[in-house]
Amino acid sequence: MTYCVGMMLEGGLVFMSDTRTNGGFDNISTFRKMSIWEAPGERMITLMAAGNLATTQAVKSVLDERSKSPDDRQSCVLRAPSMFQVARLVADTLRDVIAQHANVGQRADSTFNATLILGGQIGDSPPRLFLIYPEGNFIEASPDTPFFQIGETKYGRPILVRAYDPNMSFEAAMKLLLVSFDSTLKANLTVGAPFDFHCYRTDSLRIGATGRIEATDPYFQAVSQGWGDALREALDMLPDFSLRAAT
Amino acid sequence: MTYCVGMMLEGGLVFMSDTRTNGGFDNISTFRKMSIWEAPGERMITLMAAGNLATTQAVKSVLDERSKSPDDRQSCVLRAPSMFQVARLVADTLRDVIAQHANVGQRADSTFNATLILGGQIGDSPPRLFLIYPEGNFIEASPDTPFFQIGETKYGRPILVRAYDPNMSFEAAMKLLLVSFDSTLKANLTVGAPFDFHCYRTDSLRIGATGRIEATDPYFQAVSQGWGDALREALDMLPDFSLRAAT
Repeated sequence: MTYCVGMMLEGGLVFMSDTRTNGGFDNISTFRKMSIWEAPGERMITLMAAGNLATTQAVKSVLDERSKSPDDRQSCVLRAPSMFQVARLVADTLRDVIAQHANVGQRADSTFNATLILGGQIGDSPPRLFLIYPEGNFIEASPDTPFFQIGETKYGRPILVRAYDPNMSFEAAMKLLLVSFDSTLKANLTVGAPFDFHCYRTDSLRIGATGRIEATDPYFQAVSQGWGDALREALDMLPDFSLRAAT
Repeated sequence: MTYCVGMMLEGGLVFMSDTRTNGGFDNISTFRKMSIWEAPGERMITLMAAGNLATTQAVKSVLDERSKSPDDRQSCVLRAPSMFQVARLVADTLRDVIAQHANVGQRADSTFNATLILGGQIGDSPPRLFLIYPEGNFIEASPDTPFFQIGETKYGRPILVRAYDPNMSFEAAMKLLLVSFDSTLKANLTVGAPFDFHCYRTDSLRIGATGRIEATDPYFQAVSQGWGDALREALDMLPDFSLRAAT
């Protein structure tokens, strides 16, 4: 499995991805699931992937190769004129890669599936965030749905739904994401640290704060341990149920 | 879908179940998923069901009929000598009902599946709590795994894992369960109010506080609305991430 979240804030975009991949519970590895392309001062594009690792790596490699080949310039994430065109390009690449493998051999189509979160900004246009499906279609984030999750989305969703605020700082958003990731980590063995992150500041048009947070990171440990206490205190703040009134 | 939780506390057992069943998103109904049998002063047994409604209703009806027929007394939840024997009886009934439907017609076995939570107490033995699988086998709760969830378990799990305390009062446990149900409700349309509950006090050997909590219940609304604020305050209590330290 995988857990990735892409989030739109007033101040920019925040991305976080775990790094665990597994072929069976006894065959786990660490792979980076976040890719970043930039043309400093002109565009910044971040892609995160959940699903079949061969598929997602092939998508990244195809996109990388095209961005280096002079013949393929118009179909390149660094040349496409808008984020919508970048999303179409990435989505088409994803669908093609899946189709190549799905049409040979005996295995089911779904085995090769992957889902992507794509976010970025080009020139004067505002930052945009997309969720790309294995079928090659995609949806875009909006104020109503300001973040996307892929992979093991359920355990970490309630806290995002409740505590997300478009005006929150990158620092607060990172804290919120780490709580969401910690809840997921505790419940699904196939989601694992370290976590890669990228905080992109609107209109900077270059890679922002990026890094990798290990399971042993003192801040992550403080959040993980402190969150249990904080939750219990939050629960204590609510009035208890009255059994007498109910029966 | 469905969401049910059975929980062991120092003081007894707490059960809560939603009431939504659906055959497609446009065909929803309200059904009680909690059944209670008692022989006051001798035993109390509570059963909750997730899965195919025809299967779970058939299981309940078979168990009910047996408890009324003089010939079937030894295979009756009101006569079995121990909670383990009750669990075997219920599990065998579940497996038989599923098998009856799975072996005729064209549909897949899994269509008729159901999973059950069974809890109760008989005589001098301590209360016991079981999770019964459609295959007819089951596991028992213990201090390491003191609660079971069935149905849509993921959204409501993190708060249970973090805030469960075996020494909590029934009133606090009900509050915790309502928060867990509220998180699930907000994320999955096929889980819905009202919620049925039963708080069984150890050694009372009779039905405890039971009732139904509607979506419009003022207490539930207070918990649902208050929890968002409480969560945000809990998050505020944790230190923010430092982007400077990370990059």
